[in-house]
Amino acid sequence: MYIFTNILGVFIFDGQFNVIDKTLFNGLEDYKNKNEFIEKLKNRGFLNLKEPDKKGLKSILIYFKNPQFFSDFYNKNLQFTKSAIKNSVNKDTLIMQSVKSIDQIDKAINILAKRAREWYELHNPEFSVATQSHEKFVEGILNKEKSELLSSIRVNIEDSMGADLGQEDIEPIKSLAHQIYDLYQLKGLQEDYISTLMEDICPNTKAVCGFLVAARLIEHAGSLKRLSEMPASTIQILGAEKALFRHMKTGSKPPRHGIIASHPLIAKSPESMHGRTARALADKISIASKIDYFKGKFIGDKLKKEIEEKFMNIK
Amino acid sequence: MYIFTNILGVFIFDGQFNVIDKTLFNGLEDYKNKNEFIEKLKNRGFLNLKEPDKKGLKSILIYFKNPQFFSDFYNKNLQFTKSAIKNSVNKDTLIMQSVKSIDQIDKAINILAKRAREWYELHNPEFSVATQSHEKFVEGILNKEKSELLSSIRVNIEDSMGADLGQEDIEPIKSLAHQIYDLYQLKGLQEDYISTLMEDICPNTKAVCGFLVAARLIEHAGSLKRLSEMPASTIQILGAEKALFRHMKTGSKPPRHGIIASHPLIAKSPESMHGRTARALADKISIASKIDYFKGKFIGDKLKKEIEEKFMNIK
Repeated sequence: MYIFTNILGVFIFDGQFNVIDKTLFNGLEDYKNKNEFIEKLKNRGFLNLKEPDKKGLKSILIYFKNPQFFSDFYNKNLQFTKSAIKNSVNKDTLIMQSVKSIDQIDKAINILAKRAREWYELHNPEFSVATQSHEKFVEGILNKEKSELLSSIRVNIEDSMGADLGQEDIEPIKSLAHQIYDLYQLKGLQEDYISTLMEDICPNTKAVCGFLVAARLIEHAGSLKRLSEMPASTIQILGAEKALFRHMKTGSKPPRHGIIASHPLIAKSPESMHGRTARALADKISIASKIDYFKGKFIGDKLKKEIEEKFMNIK
Repeated sequence: MYIFTNILGVFIFDGQFNVIDKTLFNGLEDYKNKNEFIEKLKNRGFLNLKEPDKKGLKSILIYFKNPQFFSDFYNKNLQFTKSAIKNSVNKDTLIMQSVKSIDQIDKAINILAKRAREWYELHNPEFSVATQSHEKFVEGILNKEKSELLSSIRVNIEDSMGADLGQEDIEPIKSLAHQIYDLYQLKGLQEDYISTLMEDICPNTKAVCGFLVAARLIEHAGSLKRLSEMPASTIQILGAEKALFRHMKTGSKPPRHGIIASHPLIAKSPESMHGRTARALADKISIASKIDYFKGKFIGDKLKKEIEEKFMNIK
C-alpha cells in the first residue's frame, strides 16, 4: 500500500492503485500542515504503508489525470500561488522599490530642471549659467527677483541679455520650478524612509557604507540574502558589470569598484588608492551583510572605525 | 568724397581716405536712428558726397583695421548683440517653451507613475492592473483604502495577491503619488497659459485646430511667421518628417498627417478618410495662420464650421 500527498489531500492506494482511504485538505493552511494529516492517516492502522516507487508514482499520477480533479487542482494552485506572491513581499522588496524610486525622481528632476532653465533663460540667462546646482537654481528663482539674483552674481541689470517678461509670463516658469522644488523634498522624505528600513534590516551594513550605498547594493544583488552570500570581490565591483565584461573580452583594465565608488572613503581618497580602499571596504561590507542576514550583534561602528583608521588620513 | 556708416558713427572720407568729418554714435539708440545722423552730416555742405564703390570700400575698411578702434567695436557689437538677443523673445518663443514644458511634464509623469505602480502593486496589484489611466490610478490610491479600491473593481480582498503593508510603508508610495497628482495639476495650468497666449497671437489658428495642436505646429515650424509661410501640404505632414523621408528613400507610403493627426476631426474619422480630412484641415490652418500673422479679422469660427460641416458626419 502506498501513501501519497499532493495539494488536494493525503491518499492511501492499495496494490491495484485504488484509493482506499483519504483526507482532503480544506484550505491552504491544511496543506501547510500536511505532516500532521499524514501522521493521522498513518495511525489508522494501515500495514506496509510506503512511499510509491517510480513505477507506482506513474500509476498514481495517471489516477489524478481524471478530469474530476481539474478544477480542484486549478483553484488550489491559484490560491497557493497567490499566497506565495503575497508572502514574497518583505523589507528587502520595499528597499529595492524605494531605491528605484529615488533614481526615477532624480531623472524627473533633471528633465524638468533642464526645461525650467531653458525657459527661464529667456528672462535671466546670467543667473542660470552662473548656478550649476539645479536645487540652488530652483530655490533662487522661487525666492528672489531678477534684480536680486543678478546682483548676487555681480551682474548689472542693464547688461542682462534676458528679456523683460511680464508677471503673467514668469508665473508658469515659477510653478514649474515649484514642482521641481517639491520633487527635491520628496526625494529627501524617501531617503529618510530608506534609512529607517535599513536601520531595521541591516544596521551593520548601513553603518559601514551608509544607507544609500547599502540600499543600492541590496537592490543590485536582489536581496540581503544574496548580498550576504556574495564574496567581497563581487561586492567590490557590483554595479560595474559592463566594465568587468569589457575587461574579460578585450583585456582592458578591470574595474576597481562599482556602486561603492560613491562612498566618501573612496571618492575622497587619491586616485592611486581607489583600488585598495575599495577592496578593504568591500571586505567589511561582506562581513557586515553576513552579520545582518543572520541577525547577529551590532558591530557596524567597530567595522567602520577599523577601515577609517586605515584609510582616512592617507594622502 | 565718401560717406560711410558703421556701428561707431558716420564718417566722411576725402579722396585720399582721410577722415575729414565724423559723428560718433553715443549708444545703441543713435545707431538705430543712423539715418538722421547721416542726413545731418550731409547738410554740412559737402559736395560730391557718395557711397564708396568696391575699391573705395576696401581702403575705408583698412582704415578701420587700426587697433585704436578694436575695443570700441567689441563693446558696441556686444551691446548690439545683447540687445538683439533680448528683443528676440516674443510670444512665439514663450509658446514654444511652454509646449516643450508640457511634453517634459508628460515624460516626468510617465516615469514616476510607472514607478509608483510597480511599488504599489506589491500592496494591491489588482487595482493597478484594472486602471489604465495613470491619472485615475493616482487619484484612486490617494483617496481610497485598498478595500474600497478592490470592491470598486469587484475583487474580494481575501483574493488579493497584494501584501499587507503597514501605514508607514504605504506613506512613501502615497507621497510619490501625490507628486504625480501635482504634476497633472501643473500640466493643466500650463495648458491654460498656452491657451491664453494663443488667443492673443493666433486666435484663428486656435479656433480651427485647438490650442494644443496649434501650439505644437508653431513650435515645430519655429514661429508663427514661418508657419504662415508654409504651404498647406507642408503643414499637413509637419511632425511626420521621419515617415516622409522614409517614403522618399524607400518608396513606402507617404505620411497622411503629422501633428494634426491628434485633431478630433481626424482621430475620430474612419481610417479611409484620414488623408482627405487632414488635407482639408491643413488647408484651413494655412489660411488661419496667414490671417493671424498679418493680424487680420477673426474668421476662425467660420473656417472651423466649413470643415466640420464637410467631414463631421462622414462614417
